Amino acid sequence: MCPQRLVLEHVTSRWGVLVLIALDERSYRFSELRRALGRVSEKMLTQTLQTLERDGLVHRDAKPVIPPRVDYSLTDLGREVGAQVRALAEWTERRLGDVQKARQVYDEARS
Amino acid sequence: MCPQRLVLEHVTSRWGVLVLIALDERSYRFSELRRALGRVSEKMLTQTLQTLERDGLVHRDAKPVIPPRVDYSLTDLGREVGAQVRALAEWTERRLGDVQKARQVYDEARS
Repeated sequence: MCPQRLVLEHVTSRWGVLVLIALDERSYRFSELRRALGRVSEKMLTQTLQTLERDGLVHRDAKPVIPPRVDYSLTDLGREVGAQVRALAEWTERRLGDVQKARQVYDEARS
Repeated sequence: MCPQRLVLEHVTSRWGVLVLIALDERSYRFSELRRALGRVSEKMLTQTLQTLERDGLVHRDAKPVIPPRVDYSLTDLGREVGAQVRALAEWTERRLGDVQKARQVYDEARS
């Protein structure tokens, strides 16, 4: 696979998309992020965050306090792509009515 | 799942992304599109195109000729989202160097 397709897969992965959208708004602690996303396993969220951190899109800030506290936020690079992914999500929200109408037409033509 | 998240999953699905990017450039015949994408099974591409057609993003034009000829293109709605997905892909191309540098730093800190 060509390397930029791999980056594209990371930022458009099921949980990658939702992590970028959430962190584009503000920073989150792990457990808080997990609750915000819903239905994501701890392992899958950890993996998603590590992939995005390794790509330089997410910053992991582990504070040396007791109990340990880890905050996740977007890097400058991450904010660039986060804004685009968020715009895409906003488009789907804005155009949901058109999509639903199209589905109805499609289904009626086939029933 | 909330309905707009489902649309977002369609346009950011592994093959959905690549189909939208290809069709944003020009229309394709099925076999031609399959070659352009690489490594996609016939079944998976059929499914991806059907999902995007049902969402009103892709137009399927079956011409009544012998041998049969089917062209796929984006609808007006599809062009809106195709342009955004393409911009995202172009971003990953443009920023690939930064991502690769970040990965090197990440891996070195852990080796």
